[in-house]
Amino acid sequence: MTRTVLESKSKTVVIGFDEPFCVIGERINPTGRKKLAAELEMGDFSTVERDALEQVACGAGVLDINSGAVFSNKMAEDPRYADNNFVEPPLMRDLIAKVQAVVDVPLCIDSSVPAALEAGLAVAEGRPLVNSVTGEEERLELVLPLVKKYNVPVVAISNDDTGISEDPDVRFAVAKKIVERAADFGIPAHDIVVDPLVMPVGAMATAGRQVFTLVHRLRTELGVNTTCGASNVSFGLPNRHGINGAFLPMAIGAGMTSAIMNPVRNQEMEAIRAANLLMNHDPNGMEWIKLSKTLDAMREAGQSFAEASAAAVTSGGGRRGGRRRTRG
Amino acid sequence: MTRTVLESKSKTVVIGFDEPFCVIGERINPTGRKKLAAELEMGDFSTVERDALEQVACGAGVLDINSGAVFSNKMAEDPRYADNNFVEPPLMRDLIAKVQAVVDVPLCIDSSVPAALEAGLAVAEGRPLVNSVTGEEERLELVLPLVKKYNVPVVAISNDDTGISEDPDVRFAVAKKIVERAADFGIPAHDIVVDPLVMPVGAMATAGRQVFTLVHRLRTELGVNTTCGASNVSFGLPNRHGINGAFLPMAIGAGMTSAIMNPVRNQEMEAIRAANLLMNHDPNGMEWIKLSKTLDAMREAGQSFAEASAAAVTSGGGRRGGRRRTRG
Repeated sequence: MTRTVLESKSKTVVIGFDEPFCVIGERINPTGRKKLAAELEMGDFSTVERDALEQVACGAGVLDINSGAVFSNKMAEDPRYADNNFVEPPLMRDLIAKVQAVVDVPLCIDSSVPAALEAGLAVAEGRPLVNSVTGEEERLELVLPLVKKYNVPVVAISNDDTGISEDPDVRFAVAKKIVERAADFGIPAHDIVVDPLVMPVGAMATAGRQVFTLVHRLRTELGVNTTCGASNVSFGLPNRHGINGAFLPMAIGAGMTSAIMNPVRNQEMEAIRAANLLMNHDPNGMEWIKLSKTLDAMREAGQSFAEASAAAVTSGGGRRGGRRRTRG
Repeated sequence: MTRTVLESKSKTVVIGFDEPFCVIGERINPTGRKKLAAELEMGDFSTVERDALEQVACGAGVLDINSGAVFSNKMAEDPRYADNNFVEPPLMRDLIAKVQAVVDVPLCIDSSVPAALEAGLAVAEGRPLVNSVTGEEERLELVLPLVKKYNVPVVAISNDDTGISEDPDVRFAVAKKIVERAADFGIPAHDIVVDPLVMPVGAMATAGRQVFTLVHRLRTELGVNTTCGASNVSFGLPNRHGINGAFLPMAIGAGMTSAIMNPVRNQEMEAIRAANLLMNHDPNGMEWIKLSKTLDAMREAGQSFAEASAAAVTSGGGRRGGRRRTRG
């Protein structure tokens, strides 16, 4: 059974065929979050710290740390800031330091800049996941040596120099190529987590079935774990959480073992916990019962899922309403 | 591609591998509904009529009609009422007449009394589904001739004279036996809808995976459509709708083509509509968009799902708030 082992300072998380689905929290990502990028530019990491705590409280087992910020003001003053090779490595170091100071979960070091990946690998505690390599020749040659040097697992995205194919057989072939090239570097298949690329079902009606079939093939033919940007499937459609909330159990049933997603959304997290239970990956339904109590508390108190989850953590698991009262 | 064709007076519903998931509404069933049984005993069919309309508005494609009532007061006066062979045939006729008068969808004639099945078959318009035959010798000999005589499809439940096996291979073998015996009567496999029996996951941790594997085998090895009592999977656990809402998409992904369930529950129906979309069984996402509008209207108006669904039907599909205003 394929097991991808990730570690933080003191915790181990396994992505695997016989493990609960691994939720990789996607929130710490300044790409497309202008407010966060502006905060980071001013050296303000308070949102990052809050996002780290919230995502872990809501059930993220791993946190993705993306350093793809654009520092517009600094760029106006100093042209070196127009280059991501200049901006991202120190930012990645800072992001990782801040996150490791508040939570103890494995990290997923996410950048298109190899120097930022290496900067992250140098400071991350334990055994992080690298995000990502693709089938593009340049990426293979730059990222795989890093992955080998630090003996860490890597996310492999199924596109190559020709782009993203709409043909799932081509995407499978790209994944196979990456696994083979990794083997040339001495990187085992169980350290490759393939992202088969999820297309929006609103734009391509076969997108869902493509993924289910691909995940099954990747698992049975290549023996690799899988991940995806889950919410992409519902892009452009109304009531996206409802689509994501059905997609995730279906993907889990097909053999998907992780996703990079927003864990602060109760509909998706409820679907994943229920799927874990139905896959017999939740002994005695303990995790399901815990989540059910959090959902009850959330509804009763009119809280957000993040608030109710944080309260459940503070109160030590299932108990509602914070600290236990002491009789005087 | 396997297609089980059902008909009402003027509508055709196909349960099939390439069709949207078929929801068979379970509400018209006096078993375990004492109030409904008491109403039926007094000749009051108002709840039945309301349940018929509500379930169809919420998205049931077929309505199950179960005649298993116990008429306690009549029984005290007349001992013949202690015999279901006496009670059910006329009750089934009345139930079907009342339901057919208010809705035009195929029916699923549900009784453990063969005479009630035949009474129902005699009065049902179109091509109803018979519920059910099992692998028990006596049932096979009583029900299959009826199915052949009326040329209708039948639900086949995977238990036999030895009871319900916890071993999925035994349940598969029972289904296979029923399909073979049906063939001896000249009934084709595409007119058998197998219920592989869903166990509560709280009592048997492998129950979910068993069903997914069984459904896949039934579909690929026997070429039959499948159904189940979906809510049984969550029996005894908290937040049952959350479990059902993940189970249904996973079962659909595994190849399940129908379920006997309560369509008045928005969480389950949302999961099914999303799964249809993801299976490419919802051209242009029309059904998803329609449901999303109903869910929005439900939340905005503080309505129940049944109320919002009924309002959507009245207003002709997606429009909210009843009739369109005419400018004077």
